Amino acid sequence: MFEIIKEIKEKKHQEINGEMFIVMEKHFLDAKNGDKYIGLKLKDKSGIIEAKIWKNLYHLHENFKEGDFVKLKAKTNYYKDNWQLIIENIEKIEVDETIKDEFLPKTKKDIEVLTKELFAIINGTQNQAIKKLLLSVFEEDEFFAKFKKAPAAKSMHHAYIGGLMEHTISVAKIAKEIAKFYMPIDTDILVAGALLHDIGKVYEIDASTFNYTNEGKLIGHIVIGYNLVKEKIKNIKLSNEQEVQILHCILAHHGEYEYGSPKIPKTKEALLLHLIDTMDSKMEPLQNIQANETNWSESIKILGRSFFVPKTNKTEELTLF
Amino acid sequence: MFEIIKEIKEKKHQEINGEMFIVMEKHFLDAKNGDKYIGLKLKDKSGIIEAKIWKNLYHLHENFKEGDFVKLKAKTNYYKDNWQLIIENIEKIEVDETIKDEFLPKTKKDIEVLTKELFAIINGTQNQAIKKLLLSVFEEDEFFAKFKKAPAAKSMHHAYIGGLMEHTISVAKIAKEIAKFYMPIDTDILVAGALLHDIGKVYEIDASTFNYTNEGKLIGHIVIGYNLVKEKIKNIKLSNEQEVQILHCILAHHGEYEYGSPKIPKTKEALLLHLIDTMDSKMEPLQNIQANETNWSESIKILGRSFFVPKTNKTEELTLF
Amino acid sequence: MFEIIKEIKEKKHQEINGEMFIVMEKHFLDAKNGDKYIGLKLKDKSGIIEAKIWKNLYHLHENFKEGDFVKLKAKTNYYKDNWQLIIENIEKIEVDETIKDEFLPKTKKDIEVLTKELFAIINGTQNQAIKKLLLSVFEEDEFFAKFKKAPAAKSMHHAYIGGLMEHTISVAKIAKEIAKFYMPIDTDILVAGALLHDIGKVYEIDASTFNYTNEGKLIGHIVIGYNLVKEKIKNIKLSNEQEVQILHCILAHHGEYEYGSPKIPKTKEALLLHLIDTMDSKMEPLQNIQANETNWSESIKILGRSFFVPKTNKTEELTLF
Amino acid sequence: MFEIIKEIKEKKHQEINGEMFIVMEKHFLDAKNGDKYIGLKLKDKSGIIEAKIWKNLYHLHENFKEGDFVKLKAKTNYYKDNWQLIIENIEKIEVDETIKDEFLPKTKKDIEVLTKELFAIINGTQNQAIKKLLLSVFEEDEFFAKFKKAPAAKSMHHAYIGGLMEHTISVAKIAKEIAKFYMPIDTDILVAGALLHDIGKVYEIDASTFNYTNEGKLIGHIVIGYNLVKEKIKNIKLSNEQEVQILHCILAHHGEYEYGSPKIPKTKEALLLHLIDTMDSKMEPLQNIQANETNWSESIKILGRSFFVPKTNKTEELTLF
Amino acid sequence: MFEIIKEIKEKKHQEINGEMFIVMEKHFLDAKNGDKYIGLKLKDKSGIIEAKIWKNLYHLHENFKEGDFVKLKAKTNYYKDNWQLIIENIEKIEVDETIKDEFLPKTKKDIEVLTKELFAIINGTQNQAIKKLLLSVFEEDEFFAKFKKAPAAKSMHHAYIGGLMEHTISVAKIAKEIAKFYMPIDTDILVAGALLHDIGKVYEIDASTFNYTNEGKLIGHIVIGYNLVKEKIKNIKLSNEQEVQILHCILAHHGEYEYGSPKIPKTKEALLLHLIDTMDSKMEPLQNIQANETNWSESIKILGRSFFVPKTNKTEELTLF
Amino acid sequence: MFEIIKEIKEKKHQEINGEMFIVMEKHFLDAKNGDKYIGLKLKDKSGIIEAKIWKNLYHLHENFKEGDFVKLKAKTNYYKDNWQLIIENIEKIEVDETIKDEFLPKTKKDIEVLTKELFAIINGTQNQAIKKLLLSVFEEDEFFAKFKKAPAAKSMHHAYIGGLMEHTISVAKIAKEIAKFYMPIDTDILVAGALLHDIGKVYEIDASTFNYTNEGKLIGHIVIGYNLVKEKIKNIKLSNEQEVQILHCILAHHGEYEYGSPKIPKTKEALLLHLIDTMDSKMEPLQNIQANETNWSESIKILGRSFFVPKTNKTEELTLF
Repeated sequence: MFEIIKEIKEKKHQEINGEMFIVMEKHFLDAKNGDKYIGLKLKDKSGIIEAKIWKNLYHLHENFKEGDFVKLKAKTNYYKDNWQLIIENIEKIEVDETIKDEFLPKTKKDIEVLTKELFAIINGTQNQAIKKLLLSVFEEDEFFAKFKKAPAAKSMHHAYIGGLMEHTISVAKIAKEIAKFYMPIDTDILVAGALLHDIGKVYEIDASTFNYTNEGKLIGHIVIGYNLVKEKIKNIKLSNEQEVQILHCILAHHGEYEYGSPKIPKTKEALLLHLIDTMDSKMEPLQNIQANETNWSESIKILGRSFFVPKTNKTEELTLF
Repeated sequence: MFEIIKEIKEKKHQEINGEMFIVMEKHFLDAKNGDKYIGLKLKDKSGIIEAKIWKNLYHLHENFKEGDFVKLKAKTNYYKDNWQLIIENIEKIEVDETIKDEFLPKTKKDIEVLTKELFAIINGTQNQAIKKLLLSVFEEDEFFAKFKKAPAAKSMHHAYIGGLMEHTISVAKIAKEIAKFYMPIDTDILVAGALLHDIGKVYEIDASTFNYTNEGKLIGHIVIGYNLVKEKIKNIKLSNEQEVQILHCILAHHGEYEYGSPKIPKTKEALLLHLIDTMDSKMEPLQNIQANETNWSESIKILGRSFFVPKTNKTEELTLF
Repeated sequence: MFEIIKEIKEKKHQEINGEMFIVMEKHFLDAKNGDKYIGLKLKDKSGIIEAKIWKNLYHLHENFKEGDFVKLKAKTNYYKDNWQLIIENIEKIEVDETIKDEFLPKTKKDIEVLTKELFAIINGTQNQAIKKLLLSVFEEDEFFAKFKKAPAAKSMHHAYIGGLMEHTISVAKIAKEIAKFYMPIDTDILVAGALLHDIGKVYEIDASTFNYTNEGKLIGHIVIGYNLVKEKIKNIKLSNEQEVQILHCILAHHGEYEYGSPKIPKTKEALLLHLIDTMDSKMEPLQNIQANETNWSESIKILGRSFFVPKTNKTEELTLF
Repeated sequence: MFEIIKEIKEKKHQEINGEMFIVMEKHFLDAKNGDKYIGLKLKDKSGIIEAKIWKNLYHLHENFKEGDFVKLKAKTNYYKDNWQLIIENIEKIEVDETIKDEFLPKTKKDIEVLTKELFAIINGTQNQAIKKLLLSVFEEDEFFAKFKKAPAAKSMHHAYIGGLMEHTISVAKIAKEIAKFYMPIDTDILVAGALLHDIGKVYEIDASTFNYTNEGKLIGHIVIGYNLVKEKIKNIKLSNEQEVQILHCILAHHGEYEYGSPKIPKTKEALLLHLIDTMDSKMEPLQNIQANETNWSESIKILGRSFFVPKTNKTEELTLF
Repeated sequence: MFEIIKEIKEKKHQEINGEMFIVMEKHFLDAKNGDKYIGLKLKDKSGIIEAKIWKNLYHLHENFKEGDFVKLKAKTNYYKDNWQLIIENIEKIEVDETIKDEFLPKTKKDIEVLTKELFAIINGTQNQAIKKLLLSVFEEDEFFAKFKKAPAAKSMHHAYIGGLMEHTISVAKIAKEIAKFYMPIDTDILVAGALLHDIGKVYEIDASTFNYTNEGKLIGHIVIGYNLVKEKIKNIKLSNEQEVQILHCILAHHGEYEYGSPKIPKTKEALLLHLIDTMDSKMEPLQNIQANETNWSESIKILGRSFFVPKTNKTEELTLF
Repeated sequence: MFEIIKEIKEKKHQEINGEMFIVMEKHFLDAKNGDKYIGLKLKDKSGIIEAKIWKNLYHLHENFKEGDFVKLKAKTNYYKDNWQLIIENIEKIEVDETIKDEFLPKTKKDIEVLTKELFAIINGTQNQAIKKLLLSVFEEDEFFAKFKKAPAAKSMHHAYIGGLMEHTISVAKIAKEIAKFYMPIDTDILVAGALLHDIGKVYEIDASTFNYTNEGKLIGHIVIGYNLVKEKIKNIKLSNEQEVQILHCILAHHGEYEYGSPKIPKTKEALLLHLIDTMDSKMEPLQNIQANETNWSESIKILGRSFFVPKTNKTEELTLF
């Protein structure tokens, strides 16, 4: 269900009528020279497809905007080695939360299990002020509802509903394991840094379209997250040293200035958090790689190259070939 | 007055007794291998000098810490092409504000004139909410008392008391001039960005020693400044678009990720602010360059090279040679 | 008039016959493997369009070359999301200067007003030798006729007839304004540098096609301009110091070796000129940016990214959407 | 003969039936979303062409794999400015060595002459142990049979059968010439380095398809070559110093870490070898450049830019235009 | 015992007579201009000290060479903020292994415990061929005797006797922990890579002086280690895929070409190994950082910056201040 | 003779009186803070030595300037591991050309032989216009007198009298040899480029002090040389293509923008010239390397690292050790 795009690419439809998509991008193309058509990127659970409106565009334009759920009447068309839709009619539809939940790609893990893991990690912190800070962030219902659904990235890694939660917990769990090897480490600071480092992504990426928000493009998740935590700290009795260490973990987690961190790691905990965050971002996209006949995967976006997959690792569906 | 360091370098003293200095840096050197001596950097209005405590160090160590004003009994010593002090006694002294004011290198401009210029610029903004925001920042007495004294950098540019104020006003005035050439520009946003872009330096650099603070090293003036403004905005009726534009100006003013900006300029105003800030940082250290016989200045720190000064520009004191 | 390319993109023509274009580029494509077709880029005042000759190519090839004005018989074709022309016949035509003037994209400013501004700036210089040098360059009729028409770049900034003049004057005027903030500065040197820094572009870029010339590709505007000025100086009584400073301004105006400057700025005037030149090159392309529905412009070529345009800045024609 | 691809590009065929090609690449495209087609790159002596299998793909897929020689029934199709083949039937064929030899692009030089030159260079070495090492490598029949056919690269330089031999001899001959200018040099070490530096390419690149092998991608020719020589040295009485110098020449010949050398040149001979290898790699692709009407070549892949070719150098076939 | 250098720095000796040191470096300085003196770096368990021979240098020169154990007659001298020795007499002495063992800085861990851990990890591998390979490497007595003593680096990280063993086991243990988070992973390949990745350091660094060997400088530990394993594999029945994966882990463990890896990681296991190796190299030097009064450590060599140490982490000896 | 500096370093003088030196550098040090002393770099044939004037500096300052030959009364002093002179009196002396010729480090080759080689190369060019151009440059007496004496660099390579001539001829001879391997090449253009590429160094570096001139720092040898040739071409009937190719060779010979070339090589000849120039610059400083006991040379400045010299290459004087 909600996997029409996959079916179109399997040539199962010559036209569609009434199917549901979400509008990820909407552009008037060649707008300066005559505003000829509207180009769209549409998404459902099974993928992304391009679509174009050639006729009635000023009329149809009124019906919807980026981020809306729409139903279509359209013809399928194979063009430049990709399938596209030529839209004849498009209308906005209202969908309830249950449907939205089913509609987008989603973590394979159980959100409720992840939620329990998250709070178990929080409750495992020793320092009461830090525990209180973490609870004050994650027990805020409005925030946590968004957090549970947020993807961790547009396309690089964990790019699915629940991806942020999955990545956050993965980093925190690994951090706790690794900390044992490098004692003394302030594990509470490290865990707090791990759980909070990416919370700004809740507002940086629109979970309905996986697009960056204006705030995401102009402020960014590092500073947004810093600000969210800074606000919460006002009501918590952290020492100055604890406060600055936790905030520093957030600001420095990209590790290098050129990756957008306004500070590079200057505490043991911030450095370790950065190293684990990098590890998780690079390893997740490799987790389910499959290879072609010659043992090589497609290019992995975040790493910029293909990976060798030995024959014995190949999944069954590929061995059909 | 307070120019003993210059006099020492002019060989006017073989020993000093009771003169006043500020302790910029204090280190136990070779601490791991026997804690042999305390190394200091001392400052007065006329410069910086190194000093060492070889005797009674654990006793004298108790008397003072970094940032204190001290009076000394010491011998002068010419060592490795530099003058240094060998300290025999050192005691902390309390000094009142008037004396502090006279003690450190200071802008040649009149702080009161600069203050008037600053408020004239603020009052020149058209948008009432922006004007209110600026006033709420600069009319806060405690902040403004610090702002008036802050240097703009440790050593790169405007590294003197009042340097931050001087740089801030310079950027704002130039911004207003240049904006005319690139209309349409939202001059109020630009001026607000100019006046606020470096305010975090008030807490990044310790105005008594010109050292970076812990907060400066771990959070940095860009994010500190962002947070100061974000707090003030809570009580001001700015539109979302205005808020995000002003905050973006602060976050993006270093222009490139590798210079510590968590965002690069993505509005016309933020780009122009960045270009003018860069210009002012590079031009200020050139303002009073003098050349040696062969027409070349000393190496300018922020630019990393010497500059050619034509003969006709040379100041009189050099033509004595 | 001369805006057929815009009309083609607005679907107003299925074929054209006798319309005029200029040939910007002409290539035999796949030449090694059978010389199958001639690919062209054609330009008129309203834009650029691709065209192809599939039939009679060896015959039609004789009729014209790069840089010629031609008239066509051709069919319009929408291909790979772009309009192109399939040429049936093509002939060179001779056009007089008046027509050429109207034919290409052009500064919106009045060339005569710019000319007056230019000579006013020259006449404002205090040093008689420098003034004489500037007059000797800009009063040479053949040069000045070309200078008035030259674009400042192929596509990066001020890429239109008169763009070089407009950019040159903009830099000079801003330089004069900014100089006041950083006195002492030798304003005459600075203004001379500003007016002369890009004159080599007159011979680097072919003003009929906006392509780089062979000399442009092999020598470049920095050295061409250096040479033009060096020649003129022979007849002017500049001091050695003045000569070397003005020439250095030209050689160093790109600011960094990696941008093709054989020297980096080593005088106050050369540094300031470089900073203003950079500012003008980056700000000009932003001057008339328009945004799509989501507040973002198209990618600005010289800056490599899109810019945020607040809603209130949008031009009326876009608010129609 | 075996130049059908060139003929297709000259529009001499609308369909082909029974012609022979080698399969350079074979991919199931969009495999995840429905396995719609098989994309191929086919090669014969005259070039490379793309091909697609849309029908019967699971059946035809069984018939062949990458690296096979195949004969086709297919239609030619001009698509996106390139010719392609739409395959109706494809079958593997067995071809004998003579045919393979004629089938792929090949050095214009006579392999037997090159072989004599190679052994003349080996026999010219003074040091008996080094001569013995070189003979033990190049007299091994199985290796030498491969060496004679290997290309020196996939596409960058000397990308044809015999290219490795040609490049190797070119580097060795130039090395001997240049060594005279920088005496004292250990010419035997230098020549040994020259002859051995790229021998790992025999196993890095598949000479039938010019693709990288798995070993090529995961180990690379530098380390493969190191290992081949290290093995041979076991049976030769080289001094430790000679051994380490020859192996260092191989490991360091790319000159910089970022080009994949695990060591940078730290002997006179290794540095000179690197400089000559670079020279030959950059000069070979320029050897037969031709220019278009405006004197400029196509972009040279290894150099990333077009080159100016003066009119008088143009080949006759181009002057027809 | 063997901690004279520390005592010299604590001013406990004005001269020494008969104390033992190891000669890390020995240079004839200003050799071209008169061969004035011999400069030495001497080491004992407690540190490194410079020494100079001014008199009898050609005579004393005969007595010893780099890497020798020597006993001295010398005066201590404080020069340029460092202690040095002015040597009057120097003689080589023979020392037995027990003394050597006590003489150099050493891991704080128990080598026998580490040995057991190592073999436990080896015995934990599932694949019998891989286990056999690992045993064939580490059960070779001569190699293992060296391996147990090798430092992991000259100065960057784990720069002490047993450091290589400690680092190797640390990487292997962490690898096994982290692998669980990214299944499917071939844990045996990963563990083999972890245990073997740095074994070349046994021959790259001279364990008596911590200097690089000639082979270390000209071949390097990556290729030396590759070769050691390649030799062992000859007698083991690994599949081609297993062999190439393990060797690739060694060649790619520095992760980027510019850090000297001739290949970048192209398998999941090689990438994870690289990430953990980097983590361990950066975290080890932070393990026992201590801070000065202002909470900042000395600059950490491998990271190039100081680290913040919160007050509560300070060691007792520093809180004495 | 004129080798006092070497003798001082051999401890043969405690004071000197009347010896001759050339003043390479002269600085008032700490000028801003009291103008305490004059620091000098002095040179004779055997090396460079630092010197200081502490007394009578304003008086002695009048006696000489940078570039003068002086005679001294001074004490030798060993300070910070280097010898220096403490000057008591200093006076300018006039020296005639013969003495100057003997005074500075000089090529070991015979200038007259080099001159003949140079003109032989010129006379070997086929194209009469190019030959005429070369003769017009090198037959100009004033220029050629300077050219014969110029060093090729301050310190990087060929840093001695006659070094420019030696380097120029070396590049030209190698170019002629290598050209044979890459025919077709326009050998006359290549040779002209080789002979002319560095002629600007005649005016970039002061041959009396090996310091950069003001023109050298502000214009640079690439553009100076371009201008010298451009002037000469006025009177020669070169085709446009020949002119632009020769000038391009000069402008592009550093090969990359970041090394100060305003254009990168875009002709076959310019690329080859660049490659050979690089080779000669890097190989010359290696020509006479000597190694210490452990086979390693001192760091080679232009290459930034030490080189391995096998035992058998060591010169006899070192084997004395």
